[in-house]
Amino acid sequence: AQSSVTIYGIIDAAVVATTNQTATGGSKFSMDAGQLLTSRWGIKGSEDLGGGLKANFNLEGTLANDTGTAGAGFGGNVFNQTGNNTSLFDRLSWVGLSGDFGSVTLGRNNILGVDSVGLADPISLAHAGSNPNVMFSALNSGAFFGGFGTNQGGSALRQNNSIKYVSPLMSGFGGALMYGFGEKAGDSTASNYAGLSGFFTDGTNGAALSYAKMKDNANAAFMTGFAGGAKFKVAPSVMLRGTYAQTKVDGNIKIDALPSANGRKIAVIGLGADFSLSDQTTLTAAYYNTKRSGDIDGKADQYIGLAKYAFSKRTTAYASLTYAKAGSVNAQDVSLALGIIGAGNSSAMRTAVGVLHAF
Amino acid sequence: AQSSVTIYGIIDAAVVATTNQTATGGSKFSMDAGQLLTSRWGIKGSEDLGGGLKANFNLEGTLANDTGTAGAGFGGNVFNQTGNNTSLFDRLSWVGLSGDFGSVTLGRNNILGVDSVGLADPISLAHAGSNPNVMFSALNSGAFFGGFGTNQGGSALRQNNSIKYVSPLMSGFGGALMYGFGEKAGDSTASNYAGLSGFFTDGTNGAALSYAKMKDNANAAFMTGFAGGAKFKVAPSVMLRGTYAQTKVDGNIKIDALPSANGRKIAVIGLGADFSLSDQTTLTAAYYNTKRSGDIDGKADQYIGLAKYAFSKRTTAYASLTYAKAGSVNAQDVSLALGIIGAGNSSAMRTAVGVLHAF
Amino acid sequence: AQSSVTIYGIIDAAVVATTNQTATGGSKFSMDAGQLLTSRWGIKGSEDLGGGLKANFNLEGTLANDTGTAGAGFGGNVFNQTGNNTSLFDRLSWVGLSGDFGSVTLGRNNILGVDSVGLADPISLAHAGSNPNVMFSALNSGAFFGGFGTNQGGSALRQNNSIKYVSPLMSGFGGALMYGFGEKAGDSTASNYAGLSGFFTDGTNGAALSYAKMKDNANAAFMTGFAGGAKFKVAPSVMLRGTYAQTKVDGNIKIDALPSANGRKIAVIGLGADFSLSDQTTLTAAYYNTKRSGDIDGKADQYIGLAKYAFSKRTTAYASLTYAKAGSVNAQDVSLALGIIGAGNSSAMRTAVGVLHAF
Repeated sequence: AQSSVTIYGIIDAAVVATTNQTATGGSKFSMDAGQLLTSRWGIKGSEDLGGGLKANFNLEGTLANDTGTAGAGFGGNVFNQTGNNTSLFDRLSWVGLSGDFGSVTLGRNNILGVDSVGLADPISLAHAGSNPNVMFSALNSGAFFGGFGTNQGGSALRQNNSIKYVSPLMSGFGGALMYGFGEKAGDSTASNYAGLSGFFTDGTNGAALSYAKMKDNANAAFMTGFAGGAKFKVAPSVMLRGTYAQTKVDGNIKIDALPSANGRKIAVIGLGADFSLSDQTTLTAAYYNTKRSGDIDGKADQYIGLAKYAFSKRTTAYASLTYAKAGSVNAQDVSLALGIIGAGNSSAMRTAVGVLHAF
Repeated sequence: AQSSVTIYGIIDAAVVATTNQTATGGSKFSMDAGQLLTSRWGIKGSEDLGGGLKANFNLEGTLANDTGTAGAGFGGNVFNQTGNNTSLFDRLSWVGLSGDFGSVTLGRNNILGVDSVGLADPISLAHAGSNPNVMFSALNSGAFFGGFGTNQGGSALRQNNSIKYVSPLMSGFGGALMYGFGEKAGDSTASNYAGLSGFFTDGTNGAALSYAKMKDNANAAFMTGFAGGAKFKVAPSVMLRGTYAQTKVDGNIKIDALPSANGRKIAVIGLGADFSLSDQTTLTAAYYNTKRSGDIDGKADQYIGLAKYAFSKRTTAYASLTYAKAGSVNAQDVSLALGIIGAGNSSAMRTAVGVLHAF
Repeated sequence: AQSSVTIYGIIDAAVVATTNQTATGGSKFSMDAGQLLTSRWGIKGSEDLGGGLKANFNLEGTLANDTGTAGAGFGGNVFNQTGNNTSLFDRLSWVGLSGDFGSVTLGRNNILGVDSVGLADPISLAHAGSNPNVMFSALNSGAFFGGFGTNQGGSALRQNNSIKYVSPLMSGFGGALMYGFGEKAGDSTASNYAGLSGFFTDGTNGAALSYAKMKDNANAAFMTGFAGGAKFKVAPSVMLRGTYAQTKVDGNIKIDALPSANGRKIAVIGLGADFSLSDQTTLTAAYYNTKRSGDIDGKADQYIGLAKYAFSKRTTAYASLTYAKAGSVNAQDVSLALGIIGAGNSSAMRTAVGVLHAF
């Protein structure tokens, strides 16, 4: 049977300057990976089995190309699954079959919320490490939501031990289901993930909705998430994007220093517009509003301007300016700015200039 | 000189359900990698040096594609070599020359026992993590045999710092020698590995024998292993397979909570038959008997049925049913079932349904 | 745009015997990776953007092919950057643009000293782990110089978070600049790296000089390094090589058990000659003199003979003999022999026989 194997990736590096990183307002200068799109490398392939059936696989890992670190759990990225705390191919690691029926993939899959907010994220998933849609909307748990789901901690953007079904498009409409095994002996639902999504696209405009539920390992609490997004081309050179998403904890669970995380909810509103100045140049203006409620109230906003210049389809230079403003200098507000604002400050300005190359 | 470099691998994922995983008989549901063949990825190449001489290399690592983990020692797989406790290319990492004289490879090599039981393993090395031939017969030390050999612990299926010579086939007969350096200052044999093997094949039927000896780092004890296997096609659609292997500890060494491991011996008998129902469909029935003696007596049996459907040479769907039965609920019996039976039980049933794709 | 992606590497393995590894003069026998050239694997590519402009990337990691270990910080190689202590692509991890103006690369880059001593190293960077030019001349910090520069410890041969500019050659002359961000909030120069270099080549002969300065994280001390080298073909079959390099600590810093490292200086002189006996066979004779001063005096010499036989451009067999002689049995002398001499001895003889294959 005909088949292919491809090595591919994205390497993105930027010089970044951020104000208000110390209590006295000191700045930080750094070179950071993955500011326009998360840097990655991977291997993928497909085999034609005849009759429209295909076998497919994809292995993909995060690349911190400022230091050469790869995968999750080796360094800055946390991957806390019990007894298995690193993953080289932390972004994707699946094998599956596809055909007229759609596709089924088994392994470590993107959760469905990634599709719904990814489609319409106002800055197209740029600055992923501090992008509220990436860090909250897609049910990403991390420090705020603790050990829900099959990873039992760390990023929840992908789930271990999962089966994902994506339907074919029918008149532009499609849907997807995904289930991740918690793998706890004697309890078939502890630490599991279950999600569904629906989406529409006409090739230019589109919309998607997703819902998911993840349990903790004690099966005493669960996290639910809803995410939706839409994009619409209002003029030949103007694309509008909007997202809404929320993540909520229910049940008897202690995640951090607070007595209980029951009722903790974080909601993100994202709005943005792309202006195509030419085939090569795009300007983007975006706004994020992040609110926490239920246990402690908190809020933070981000205002972002982004300019991209495409040397080619695969190589882009970019510059961005981000103003982040928290509700106060208190941690429950500042933490919602996802590291942009240093402790003891309530706002910060970040400037990034970089280059992305996809291979 | 003409040369080639190839990226290759196997990605295998299965949904697995196993009974009797808790003391009260609770089941466990999981998605596991590598149930038909151990998932892996690698890079290999060859350069024609002229006159029949070739330079060859191979780098290959384990792939836990249910989580994206790669290599050994990052997570579930233990790789205890002192001061060097992980290996990305934990399966193979060698460079060498081949020609009319055979082949010589230097680096991390498969031990010779892998060939002799691999050839004739009743389930063709399926369910490697709980396959007695993989875990015991090939001298694999792990938890049962402690820190013998060049790895000083962990899997002994491959040895670090080793030279392997494999002869060419002469009328179907061949042989191999392998030596692994223990690398201890002032003691040239501590932690070393030495093995030899002989094999025969007529292209369809075959047999192999291997013997090896590994020392501990104190050079106070050693582990010896013998493994043999044969396969014979008794009818056009029926292949019989049989293996016998034993591993034994001699000398003054304490491995686990027992006062001494001197005399510890584990022997495995494996029998199986493949029935080819069609070009695409194969049924396999297999039986393993594992016995421990010398220090503490123990035993466990496995009865396995396996059905495979080949979509192509490289893509196969499969289902298996395993019944594991230990001699008692005591740990010395249950542990010989290699994790299939949960503590407090003496038997368990495992069902696996999966897909394998080789690229 | 036209583009390419290449998987490449070097796998080098040798059997090594070294005398005087224990206090009673015991020998050590081992199989070691990377004795002729450091073993490595990588991915690189280039995209033609038109008008002479190119986008380029390179990911490359160390390969300990005696055990299958890859990258730094997983095992024997130390990579201490705070909170990020491993790197799969520890040798190179950059993306950049090149054109008539030269090249700019962002990420983890070789420091400039690598070029100047690399060009003229008497044994062409063989035995890198015990080669004084690799371990000292290029500002490599390691155990002797502590946590200067962007890595905050470990090897300083490459710097994280760095921008490197290399000019085009003009009449054989060129230059380079490199800056690495220390990334400390509120202090833009702590833990930084800054270097410049100049070089000349006529295609056969060449010379290079480099200078660099690295700061510690407290910004209380700095390390400066100077390295120069030249090679000159004095006869059709004889190439002479010479290097001088020194690394020095200034300021208030405690690195090891000594009260202060202020003034610590290590200087290396390297001299060597290559004799080409045929297209395939080369003999090399080399001498290194390493001296420490400023805080504690120490010295060690290495005398090396190396024979190489090239099966092809990409596959080489080699043998080397090294005699290392320290000023005394004291640690400040013996340590300068970089592990060749065992504690309690003042000299050692090392024999290595191996094969290198580049793919």
